Amino acid sequence: MTLKLYFDLMSQPSRALYILLKNIKCNFTPVPVDLREAEHYSEEYTKINRFQRVPVIDHNGFVLTESVAILKYLSREGIIPDSLYPKDSKQAARVEEFLEWQHAGLRLHCAMFFRVKALDPIITGKTPDPKTLQGYERRMENALGTFNDLWLGQGKPFVAGDHISVADLLAACEVEQPRMAGYDAIAKYPNIAEWMGRVRDHFNPHYDEGHVILNKIVRNKSKMAPKL
Amino acid sequence: MTLKLYFDLMSQPSRALYILLKNIKCNFTPVPVDLREAEHYSEEYTKINRFQRVPVIDHNGFVLTESVAILKYLSREGIIPDSLYPKDSKQAARVEEFLEWQHAGLRLHCAMFFRVKALDPIITGKTPDPKTLQGYERRMENALGTFNDLWLGQGKPFVAGDHISVADLLAACEVEQPRMAGYDAIAKYPNIAEWMGRVRDHFNPHYDEGHVILNKIVRNKSKMAPKL
Repeated sequence: MTLKLYFDLMSQPSRALYILLKNIKCNFTPVPVDLREAEHYSEEYTKINRFQRVPVIDHNGFVLTESVAILKYLSREGIIPDSLYPKDSKQAARVEEFLEWQHAGLRLHCAMFFRVKALDPIITGKTPDPKTLQGYERRMENALGTFNDLWLGQGKPFVAGDHISVADLLAACEVEQPRMAGYDAIAKYPNIAEWMGRVRDHFNPHYDEGHVILNKIVRNKSKMAPKL
Repeated sequence: MTLKLYFDLMSQPSRALYILLKNIKCNFTPVPVDLREAEHYSEEYTKINRFQRVPVIDHNGFVLTESVAILKYLSREGIIPDSLYPKDSKQAARVEEFLEWQHAGLRLHCAMFFRVKALDPIITGKTPDPKTLQGYERRMENALGTFNDLWLGQGKPFVAGDHISVADLLAACEVEQPRMAGYDAIAKYPNIAEWMGRVRDHFNPHYDEGHVILNKIVRNKSKMAPKL
């Protein structure tokens, strides 16, 4: 079995897959694709993924994009254990209910806030319009509020109930992203704060390893500018 | 076995599930939830779905939200046949790759254009700002272009390759939505036009049945205003 993971630790779902594969002791080949060097737009990479995005897997020659599709496939192939992606149909459905909701329910809003506040100004050299930025922050806070109240406020420790799953890891990696734009969800949302601690504990030391670059940027944002 | 589908034919994924269940001759109970009458915000419905959205299924008492999660669950439960949701791991992954991509890749942009151009003006009584609307149209056209070229331009008749699947039906119901805002993708994107014909043919007469209200609104948009 050969499994390659094309990834960049600046990408939320890339981090989730990287941390997961390390956590489950999968023997995979990490293939870094440097987004800041625009390697995802190269001719060579476009042949691997016509959508020019990360993450991507190559499993014995079968190339697959889309992180959630990758999680499902790796579960079916027996690479992700039952403990993190349940085989039971109803339990799997609870995990998948979140995996589907998060695309437009959480990921979109955290990613857009990060992009408009932290990334676009570096690329364009322009400060974002305060009113526009306020709109993105409001939409992100609506999303985080829904996540905090309607997903994590059900009296269960994890997104899909009593047990940790791939859904928790994917969500945590999304909530980390706006920290690079100076926004810390943990300070504002108590359910998210407690849950993040549980997710981090479960997946450590690999969780922190996957977030080394992110945490470095959070600590010293000025380091981001020269590379981009 | 009892299967209830909470739906509104104004909602894209609701239409997809309604058409699918009719097409596969599933004995289900349709439960209309009138979005235009705000029934999804009622106390009664919020108890069924805390997210106040459609579609939702209730399968022998197991309540599940999120259309893509519902499709996966109904496939596992043997309700959706292998011919429309393959059991083979790699073939399933190709279908799921699209199911995951479409959330932010296609659905978001078609839905937002419909909302900003057709829905918000009815609710707020305000005409949308032309520049704002232009931005939404541009993003929708980028999405439709990617769908036309990178998904349907691969020399295969369907989204996931040689065979029709639930992915095609979900996508077609999304592409129908902006028609209610006066935008016809068929006129502009030749791959989409040919593919839409194939999807409609396969799922008819139920495809047209699921689109009766939409087509009535397209024919006479003025009918929408009094009800909303």
